[in-house]
Amino acid sequence: MDTKQYIETNKDRFLEELFELIRIPSISSQSEHKEDMVRCAEKWKEFILAAGADKAEVMPTEGHPIVYGEKIIDPKLKTVLVYGHYDVMPVDPIELWHTDPFEPVIKDGKIWARGADDDKGQSFMHAKAFETMMKTNTLPCNVKFMLEGEEEIGSGNLAKWIVTNKELVKADVILVSDTSMIASDVPSITTGLRGLAYWEVEVTGPSADLHSGLFGGAVANPINTLCEMVASMMDKNNHITIPGFYDDVVECTAEERELLNKAPYSEEAYKAGVGVKALRGEAGYTTIERVGIRPTFDLCGIWGGYTGEGSKTVLPSKAYAKISSRLVPNQDHEKIGQMFKEYFESIAPEYVNVEVKCLHGGQAYGCPIDLPEYKAAEEAYMETYGKRPIPMRSGGSIPIISEFERVLGIKSILMGFGLGSDAIHSPNENYRVDHFYKGIETIIAFYKHYAK
Amino acid sequence: MDTKQYIETNKDRFLEELFELIRIPSISSQSEHKEDMVRCAEKWKEFILAAGADKAEVMPTEGHPIVYGEKIIDPKLKTVLVYGHYDVMPVDPIELWHTDPFEPVIKDGKIWARGADDDKGQSFMHAKAFETMMKTNTLPCNVKFMLEGEEEIGSGNLAKWIVTNKELVKADVILVSDTSMIASDVPSITTGLRGLAYWEVEVTGPSADLHSGLFGGAVANPINTLCEMVASMMDKNNHITIPGFYDDVVECTAEERELLNKAPYSEEAYKAGVGVKALRGEAGYTTIERVGIRPTFDLCGIWGGYTGEGSKTVLPSKAYAKISSRLVPNQDHEKIGQMFKEYFESIAPEYVNVEVKCLHGGQAYGCPIDLPEYKAAEEAYMETYGKRPIPMRSGGSIPIISEFERVLGIKSILMGFGLGSDAIHSPNENYRVDHFYKGIETIIAFYKHYAK
Repeated sequence: MDTKQYIETNKDRFLEELFELIRIPSISSQSEHKEDMVRCAEKWKEFILAAGADKAEVMPTEGHPIVYGEKIIDPKLKTVLVYGHYDVMPVDPIELWHTDPFEPVIKDGKIWARGADDDKGQSFMHAKAFETMMKTNTLPCNVKFMLEGEEEIGSGNLAKWIVTNKELVKADVILVSDTSMIASDVPSITTGLRGLAYWEVEVTGPSADLHSGLFGGAVANPINTLCEMVASMMDKNNHITIPGFYDDVVECTAEERELLNKAPYSEEAYKAGVGVKALRGEAGYTTIERVGIRPTFDLCGIWGGYTGEGSKTVLPSKAYAKISSRLVPNQDHEKIGQMFKEYFESIAPEYVNVEVKCLHGGQAYGCPIDLPEYKAAEEAYMETYGKRPIPMRSGGSIPIISEFERVLGIKSILMGFGLGSDAIHSPNENYRVDHFYKGIETIIAFYKHYAK
Repeated sequence: MDTKQYIETNKDRFLEELFELIRIPSISSQSEHKEDMVRCAEKWKEFILAAGADKAEVMPTEGHPIVYGEKIIDPKLKTVLVYGHYDVMPVDPIELWHTDPFEPVIKDGKIWARGADDDKGQSFMHAKAFETMMKTNTLPCNVKFMLEGEEEIGSGNLAKWIVTNKELVKADVILVSDTSMIASDVPSITTGLRGLAYWEVEVTGPSADLHSGLFGGAVANPINTLCEMVASMMDKNNHITIPGFYDDVVECTAEERELLNKAPYSEEAYKAGVGVKALRGEAGYTTIERVGIRPTFDLCGIWGGYTGEGSKTVLPSKAYAKISSRLVPNQDHEKIGQMFKEYFESIAPEYVNVEVKCLHGGQAYGCPIDLPEYKAAEEAYMETYGKRPIPMRSGGSIPIISEFERVLGIKSILMGFGLGSDAIHSPNENYRVDHFYKGIETIIAFYKHYAK
């Protein structure tokens, strides 16, 4: 029996097993699901063992446990480390779901449930690809599995765990399915993830709220000042004006930019999709580049003064903003975090006090498209999709991926089979059944080409 | 018993009665206090009748009721119309109050409560001055009382009410205590009030909140855009950049500016009073001028995106601001209101939609210092304070004052006994007890000099 026949023969069971995982409400951010997290980890361990692993275990952390498993067929062969996560996002607003988020149903060719895509559906393809290779005697290299339960809450414990378990997870490449592809018939591999720096700023004018009539015109209004400070940080070309902000950005080569822009893109459809009449972005870059290879400066929130009903006049004491920058490969989030803080403080006029807190950050990630591991993935897609996948820079962030590189010294290949319409993190999350099976085939093809 | 003895004998009761008014949370802008508004009006009616009025009634409007009362001793004598308001501002941020805003306490010689000054404490002095004159048989002219419950929300219904009740409130002068004096030992009479225009703006970017990683850099962030639009409306000299904004402003003569600047002023004390290291205001004008004779552009509130704890990333759909301009004599608030709306819409970039609502407005007011009614007030202060009061332009707005002049054809004399430190509209509003009693005496002295 070849791998295709094996998948065909076992396809219903594969889905039923995935449903067993999905039915466990493993919401990492809610403490009432602590036991569910353990149950979900144990279930994963069972599946890895049943698929043919030599060993698998649920390893405790200070938070939710990590599942580790391995099949070493020959220490001299290459080793693939599979990374995924078994935790899911909360389900609120629950009233917008058409079906129970933890009772998967198949409708219109899709699995509807929390975690159907992110990341139970996608990570489970690796378990079934591994099983298929084991049962058909086609596994060409060693495999290790590492599944965490805290991806949706920042991967804090996994970041520590890999430091103390470097030897255990030693591998030649990390394989991850936790991203999307451009379209069902347009395969793509994510070659970059943006990093993130996030600040909260507080601008204080007078020490208490003042009467805007009695003091207005003579005492600086901190909201006006915050707006002016923020407005000054982006120029007319939508370049960020913080001195040194772009210093570490490695500009993409003309070749890579050309490849990136091969992705299908319709400005009209894009604008219609988000409901705007015009786009706004950095001069000299396309939309695909602006969201993929360029850093950003966005206010995620702002507040101050009177925000209730009607028209209360006040010259407020304080104004606040939450500000974030998406970063690109080679920008260090800690350096940028500090750079912004110092710059924001330096441009504060004498008539206000400012306080800047760096709330969190994560490094960007980049994968060169001439890497042998990338080439193996490319060949795998060509075999199953009949076309060369497009290298894609995602604007989102998966901070643990750059930690893997920093700590373990190896690259990750992001073979994601989700779609932008899968509603991850939202009500009615879904995942196409055909993507699930084609993902398994493509993963198997990766092992074949990679082991060559 | 003379008036001074009467006040001395009844001083504790005067305060206790004021506290009864203060304890009613008559916040006009919050619909849950609708019944409190009626209770407060009824309480006022009782006090006016008890003080010796011929009649008093609570007259309904489309909004909060108006209290009207009168004592006509002789139709041939002059008539003073007392104006005040029984509504107060909201109390937020409540956590900054040291005591319950609606349970007045006396500490350090001051009454601490919402409305202690603005305007319950100040308007109630007129009730007690009237009572004192009635009970000591010294009332030298007719008195009418007109108290509204919508001063803090624009006096919309009183403006209509005076049109249909012109005959009822017919008088020779209006007497108002709703302003401040320069210092406890520096009496002043307010001869000018700024007008007001107030807007709420809504800036919409994408039609729904977006993932700031996936869309950041390509889709305009409405908070960033709002900040930029607002920042562009004031230049480096703190001139407002709306074309035509200053067209109708009548510049003060050099002589009047010189008189205004005779008021005691210490920049160090002013800065210390509001807790700032530096002031900010229009180039070419002193602080006294900036808050008295020049228009302003202040953000009273701003909000949008994520404003909770921690660091949620989002590219929000909407951002909002509440914006106000204090206006000066001859600037028409409706013209300015429309001018801002059109300008704000005109500078909106194509990538956002803006909506501007003119929430309310009021005209500025000016009182000549050679008016006989002004002279009578001057003499009253000379009698009780032993010095000539300084004519003062207030930065605040009491829009209805200019409406009184327009509709009733009479001037208002603004005998205010508050202090800049009374924290009106803010947490820990307070009013000096000695000002309360000295105000009553000065009001009685006004009647005496005015009736001569």
